[in-house]
Amino acid sequence: MRPLIFVSNDDGLSYPGIKTLIEVAREFGDVIVAAPQNHQSGKASSISIGEPLRVKKVKEEPGFTVYAINGTPADCAKLGLGVLVGDRKVDLVLSGINHGYNHGNSVLYSGTIGVVMEGVMAGINSIAFSYGEYGPECDFSPCVPYMRHIIAAVLKNGLPSGVALNVNIPLVGKGLDSIKGIKVTTTAPGRWTNTWDHRVDPHGRDYYWMLGNYEEATPNDQSTDIYWMDRGWVSVTPIHIDQTDFQSIPTLANLLEE
Amino acid sequence: MRPLIFVSNDDGLSYPGIKTLIEVAREFGDVIVAAPQNHQSGKASSISIGEPLRVKKVKEEPGFTVYAINGTPADCAKLGLGVLVGDRKVDLVLSGINHGYNHGNSVLYSGTIGVVMEGVMAGINSIAFSYGEYGPECDFSPCVPYMRHIIAAVLKNGLPSGVALNVNIPLVGKGLDSIKGIKVTTTAPGRWTNTWDHRVDPHGRDYYWMLGNYEEATPNDQSTDIYWMDRGWVSVTPIHIDQTDFQSIPTLANLLEE
Repeated sequence: MRPLIFVSNDDGLSYPGIKTLIEVAREFGDVIVAAPQNHQSGKASSISIGEPLRVKKVKEEPGFTVYAINGTPADCAKLGLGVLVGDRKVDLVLSGINHGYNHGNSVLYSGTIGVVMEGVMAGINSIAFSYGEYGPECDFSPCVPYMRHIIAAVLKNGLPSGVALNVNIPLVGKGLDSIKGIKVTTTAPGRWTNTWDHRVDPHGRDYYWMLGNYEEATPNDQSTDIYWMDRGWVSVTPIHIDQTDFQSIPTLANLLEE
Repeated sequence: MRPLIFVSNDDGLSYPGIKTLIEVAREFGDVIVAAPQNHQSGKASSISIGEPLRVKKVKEEPGFTVYAINGTPADCAKLGLGVLVGDRKVDLVLSGINHGYNHGNSVLYSGTIGVVMEGVMAGINSIAFSYGEYGPECDFSPCVPYMRHIIAAVLKNGLPSGVALNVNIPLVGKGLDSIKGIKVTTTAPGRWTNTWDHRVDPHGRDYYWMLGNYEEATPNDQSTDIYWMDRGWVSVTPIHIDQTDFQSIPTLANLLEE
């Protein structure tokens, strides 16, 4: 039997990124898609607790089914992997291709990453793909050979337990002629420094639009995703769920335990 | 000058948990609160990208200001720390008291944790508090002495760089007469196993309510938050932002780099 591949994203079903991902996934196996009906960027691992989820089957043909869900990316992955795939074992979870990078601490806010976190918790090999193209006329073709290479390797060899891949593919065409290759990297430390566009509405009430730039803490660190992407390489960062800071436990035990 | 303490939560401004946290915070310093107007549980580090944020000042007296924001917990922390506190340096970020535990991998979904992640990224000592009480008639008084102890220690000694505290306080009164003390712990590995209440609406359309239980992967591990909370101790877990799985980098480099 062909592998069963589950696909979702955070931009929603209508975006070119997920269409390219579905095409590539179908080269490797049967595909079940459960993705947000509407745009869900910046939703992290947000889940719908107080609202019910509605599911609409929008396509069904042999080896290929597509559902649209009125929820977050994590909702789609939970309901997809928990209910919609039925009894068949899922071999791979794919998320993306996100319109925009998920490098550095953007991981924290990314709904694309939210999908693969659900995959990891369900014990399934999981890969998130992101590309630096936002517009409605996106060309995702430069991503395809790298996606094929990574998907084939993961289907063949599996991933370490509890680990998902966060793949960022550098934008081809604005100063970069062609991608140089693949580097396995770390998450670039840093922070979004937000600026705020403060406006007053016609009724005299304040409102704020959030804007921001990622400020790297260690721009010369040659191990990070941003370092290699800036130089034309695909970055593959292994990520896990546990955020415990093991290193500081002894110090804090000294300070706080009574 | 007294320390400046920023307070937020994910249950919203009207909940008893944040009221108790504000009372305790005011013992230690001047307090600026910026919290969600409406309930925001399960929002993780979700941010509002496509929607503007509205801010309403609901209280102002010397050393104490309260803002309500129509956004997520992370929005409140970003706008609060970025704009509303003004030029004064913030000494401490406090989040909670959450109505319900944030132990194990619940950290991934928690808006309470979303607030302290913003604190950490802004370089500010940050503490999240959660308690196992959900109802509208909550009594948070058993939390207070432990909160005082932890806040005083952090204001005096600081925290390791890049580390926030995730504090879970065991529910007193249902089988537990009194809290036994404080343990510095790790995050209990495991997953939410979701069940789904599938219904059909009066118009014949399907919908699903999400339900779930946390299934521990290592219930006998004596280092975890859940292990100690189950035995009547306050768990304090140091957490950081970076989710890189450093351990698997050499294996993956072998597998994927060309």
